[in-house]
Amino acid sequence: MKDWLTSLRQKDKRTIAQTITKLENRDPDALAILQQLLPFTGGAHVIGITGPPGAGKSTLIASLLAFLRKQDLTIGVIAIDPSSPYSGGAILGDRIRMNRYAMDDGIYLRSMANRGKVGGISRFTKDSVRVLDAAGFDVILIETVGVGQSELSIMHMTDSICVVLHPGAGDMIQVTKAGVMEIADIYVVNKADLIGASRLIAEIEDMLEISGGKADWAPKVIATNASAHQGIEGLWTLLQKHKQYLKHTGIGEKQRIKQLYHEVEEELWLILEQKCKEVWQQQDFEKRLTMLEKKTVTPQEIAKEVADRLFGMESE
Amino acid sequence: MKDWLTSLRQKDKRTIAQTITKLENRDPDALAILQQLLPFTGGAHVIGITGPPGAGKSTLIASLLAFLRKQDLTIGVIAIDPSSPYSGGAILGDRIRMNRYAMDDGIYLRSMANRGKVGGISRFTKDSVRVLDAAGFDVILIETVGVGQSELSIMHMTDSICVVLHPGAGDMIQVTKAGVMEIADIYVVNKADLIGASRLIAEIEDMLEISGGKADWAPKVIATNASAHQGIEGLWTLLQKHKQYLKHTGIGEKQRIKQLYHEVEEELWLILEQKCKEVWQQQDFEKRLTMLEKKTVTPQEIAKEVADRLFGMESE
Repeated sequence: MKDWLTSLRQKDKRTIAQTITKLENRDPDALAILQQLLPFTGGAHVIGITGPPGAGKSTLIASLLAFLRKQDLTIGVIAIDPSSPYSGGAILGDRIRMNRYAMDDGIYLRSMANRGKVGGISRFTKDSVRVLDAAGFDVILIETVGVGQSELSIMHMTDSICVVLHPGAGDMIQVTKAGVMEIADIYVVNKADLIGASRLIAEIEDMLEISGGKADWAPKVIATNASAHQGIEGLWTLLQKHKQYLKHTGIGEKQRIKQLYHEVEEELWLILEQKCKEVWQQQDFEKRLTMLEKKTVTPQEIAKEVADRLFGMESE
Repeated sequence: MKDWLTSLRQKDKRTIAQTITKLENRDPDALAILQQLLPFTGGAHVIGITGPPGAGKSTLIASLLAFLRKQDLTIGVIAIDPSSPYSGGAILGDRIRMNRYAMDDGIYLRSMANRGKVGGISRFTKDSVRVLDAAGFDVILIETVGVGQSELSIMHMTDSICVVLHPGAGDMIQVTKAGVMEIADIYVVNKADLIGASRLIAEIEDMLEISGGKADWAPKVIATNASAHQGIEGLWTLLQKHKQYLKHTGIGEKQRIKQLYHEVEEELWLILEQKCKEVWQQQDFEKRLTMLEKKTVTPQEIAKEVADRLFGMESE
């Protein structure tokens, strides 16, 4: 176990991959692994990169990686593959493009299948962040496609959040669809060479004026053109500013404690969900559902029955 | 009990109010009441009216009430009071305006405080719908302020959903903030006499073209000016069309069964949440949280401890 931790702390790619996989599969060692890792976490700047498909998130990350490596910073990237209808060629292409970093020990890339469950994705991502954080990466980037509620979960595992948008038909509708309006610390208007970029920036600024943004930090807007490596340094400067803000105000620490609390809750619900499934399968509730459809039993009765069995189960 | 049900079925306002309150307070009779009501439910057309503050939802409902009463239809209205920062004078004003219906037996109004909890609001609203449905109201309107995730819960208790918007600064940003983009069967552009109404309609139509909307039903857009009672008949025609669609395709029935299933789950989580709270209080987990903050215990361990106690609790 000690050797393992030493290898991990030296950013050994095989050790990192094996550790993440063990956690992913909820290996019997998982809890012990997490215990070992915890004291070594907290050093990384964990950044969420989200936004609608087509905004150029992967290109932005690729450009950011090149920039950060020049500064001798080490980076872990966790890409959460979206479920259909967004899993297409473009995304696979991005992954392949990223493969050039395979030989660089200062970069670790992990792509993660969307398990369909909010709690599931959330747990796997958190575990990976913890592994990469303990491994000593300076920066951890989490790339998610901003679609729907599941993306809100990146709030619970990042220090800073960038919402990436691009000009074009729909403009603000993208943000709408992203469902990530209010979680952004930084708005990145990518593909800023395209027509409509300045309009999109103005719209975001209007919106920020209306909503007031996050409590003490006024969200920033920055234009980038990631495929031409433009605006990346500016984005990094903003991210550093946000990191400083989190540190000086103590908000970063509070945020992390809140995230740990949230993780307790989330873990608990996963355990309970599993128990419920077991009870459901054992007891053949299908008959009761047929009765429910015929309105001869109420949802409340069925829920109570499941709960009774759930708590009776262990005492038998 | 029989007298009670007879009174309820005759839409006696006092009986309705008492029944809802009993359910709200989770009176010991609550489960029995729900059992009695269930066979009488299913007749009402349950309509969600949501949208950002200022869109004129209450005025729209008032106008719709006047229109429907002329057609001798009976209506139950459930208004979910928003939590701050939206609870202001305007909303109270709307409530008072509604009071003129106090003497009309064909209308029942119920305003509900936002309990802060998604599950909570959801349960109370569902219970009220069930009571009003069993009482035999033809139409049940649920008014919610479309802010954030909690509003998505109206999906789980309505047949048709109207998202109400108004022209003005921000336009589509309203929809964004509403977080209710994809749940609308009908978009109502209210205050359609104002500048920007046609632009807003065009923007919604653009958006619908991009997103494709709900599976088989292409969401409709209608302009109204509720304070001048304009467009209300058109809105009602669309709602009738949607009702017909739900009936003919069988989708309405499937939707209702799905909602019952969802209610089982929701009820179960409420029970489990309550149990978790009890365990938490009994066991003084505060010390463990301090350790969590110091990273001497993992969230996973604490979650496991709570679960162990939870299932051990009943067997002692």
